[in-house]
Amino acid sequence: MRTIEWKSGVVVTIDQTKLPSEEEYIKIRTCSEMADAIKTMKIRGAPLLGVAAAYGLALTAYHSKARTKQDLLKEIESCAELLRKTRPTAVNLFWAMERVLKKAKESSGGVSDVVRAVVQEAQRMADEDVETNRKIGENGAKLIQDGDVILTHCNAGCLATVDYGTALAVVRVAVEHGKRIKVFATETRPLLQGARLTAFELKRDSIPVTLITDNMVGYVMSKRLASKVVVGADRVVKDAVINKIGTFMVAVLAHEHGIPFYVAAPKSTFDLTRLSKDVVIEERSPEEVIFCGGQRIVPEGVNVLNPAFDITPLKYVSGIICETGVLSPADVRMLAT
Amino acid sequence: MRTIEWKSGVVVTIDQTKLPSEEEYIKIRTCSEMADAIKTMKIRGAPLLGVAAAYGLALTAYHSKARTKQDLLKEIESCAELLRKTRPTAVNLFWAMERVLKKAKESSGGVSDVVRAVVQEAQRMADEDVETNRKIGENGAKLIQDGDVILTHCNAGCLATVDYGTALAVVRVAVEHGKRIKVFATETRPLLQGARLTAFELKRDSIPVTLITDNMVGYVMSKRLASKVVVGADRVVKDAVINKIGTFMVAVLAHEHGIPFYVAAPKSTFDLTRLSKDVVIEERSPEEVIFCGGQRIVPEGVNVLNPAFDITPLKYVSGIICETGVLSPADVRMLAT
Repeated sequence: MRTIEWKSGVVVTIDQTKLPSEEEYIKIRTCSEMADAIKTMKIRGAPLLGVAAAYGLALTAYHSKARTKQDLLKEIESCAELLRKTRPTAVNLFWAMERVLKKAKESSGGVSDVVRAVVQEAQRMADEDVETNRKIGENGAKLIQDGDVILTHCNAGCLATVDYGTALAVVRVAVEHGKRIKVFATETRPLLQGARLTAFELKRDSIPVTLITDNMVGYVMSKRLASKVVVGADRVVKDAVINKIGTFMVAVLAHEHGIPFYVAAPKSTFDLTRLSKDVVIEERSPEEVIFCGGQRIVPEGVNVLNPAFDITPLKYVSGIICETGVLSPADVRMLAT
Repeated sequence: MRTIEWKSGVVVTIDQTKLPSEEEYIKIRTCSEMADAIKTMKIRGAPLLGVAAAYGLALTAYHSKARTKQDLLKEIESCAELLRKTRPTAVNLFWAMERVLKKAKESSGGVSDVVRAVVQEAQRMADEDVETNRKIGENGAKLIQDGDVILTHCNAGCLATVDYGTALAVVRVAVEHGKRIKVFATETRPLLQGARLTAFELKRDSIPVTLITDNMVGYVMSKRLASKVVVGADRVVKDAVINKIGTFMVAVLAHEHGIPFYVAAPKSTFDLTRLSKDVVIEERSPEEVIFCGGQRIVPEGVNVLNPAFDITPLKYVSGIICETGVLSPADVRMLAT
């Protein structure tokens, strides 16, 4: 099934905090349940966050008891307000809600027409996400040779999207085309999305995957064990790619070793009106670093820094694989406004 | 107390695998108990491994029932053989045993003279380690300015030595000299020596320390939050510094940001007859990566790579702080034979 599904007024999704030990599907019925699932990272991954936020608005519309269009729009807007406060860095969340809100406002009929418009738009976005990822996979697979070993960071797979993934769509399509591909997955501290999610979904699909800790990337590259890097993105801005903490480290090491570093991301992740310095980099709770596997690994009273993302300047990026093709850094700069 | 102490035929040391949650001192009475403590990393850190191996030979000599010098020397040699097989990368372990074996062989008296020579030599090496580290601290502190923020990787502190540390001796002496110093400690997956040991000993000494995951080094440097790097070494060879996995990543990122990268290591860590390609990089059990805080973080059946060290070519090194001064890469190349 898809990572997220709309089932007549209920959103069903897999709780990503429980993987890989438990495959638990949860039912989300309200906007505040959706906000909570996003904040606690039961739902994560930039493209998935966009669709989840759209579904959050759809839940509010679907269950609303508002009698006037104006009241309904107010409810949807206040749901959007709640969701905007969940996580600041991935642009897809903001982009998706703008799109749904526009549809709601433009709807010319009554309350039930607005509800229908909102729910349909959210569902359309889920469908589009799958198509977009498939195209990203096709465009990216052209860059991959038979025998390539691809290093990826964090999880930009089907669990980060409605289905198929972004960086891992590139891997999947290359494998479908008969190329023999192996993957290195970095574990991605503190929340271990690489170990828990990327290793999980590649293993399930029988794609050979080797897990390493984040600090082994230099070793792997110096030994020429990886031939290409493909990662996802939370936001592509005028001057940089913003993605999971550690992406910058991978990019610098790839650059130093002459290994191509690709970013796979849908256009919905692009925010080319902004510079990286103007984007809020989310800082998450120190507890995420302090506890690992439920056990305290740091003495009491030690300061902890926990930025969730970092900034990779475009000079380290070989290309950005999106649904319309592969953009060079120069292309991105040209598209920027 | 010191990290390791000889108490009439018993070696007392802190079990580093239990820190920071428990401060448990263990008693080691035989060579094979010492080999086990080293293999399981109850004892770790290049300089400490040297002294521990010397004490291993001292335990064998002290408790030996051999009646002839020849039999005693055989027993000591077979203990050395066992200890040589524990961990291959840190050179101190081999260096220390060579020194003790030489003393044993050179001893002109009978069995009891050999025993005394071996025990005294091991104790002398422990004392020398403390003096050496103090000198490393003094030499390194000259490179540190008031207000510096020093990033360190893994643990090169008093827990990696008999006392005082190597990289952390530099921090300690700078602080003693009245300089205001802060430290960033990387957690150092998989075994978390930074989180468990470096944070522990700096907190105990009231030196401000902030913990980060290994993949945050790029973020910290790009934000100019760290002004210098000081790390330890397991082996300094003709062309490189071999140290805990992730050191190379830190060095490349420091180089990219123009941040000085210093290695603090005693001469006993130098092995200037060898190139890095000729050194065995220990690969440890995948279980160390698979389990964190006692919990499985990776799906069953996923491959794991677990090299314990990596190689930092000298071009990334600003200087090697040792007991006789600060050596440039050019100095190291000149000393190499």
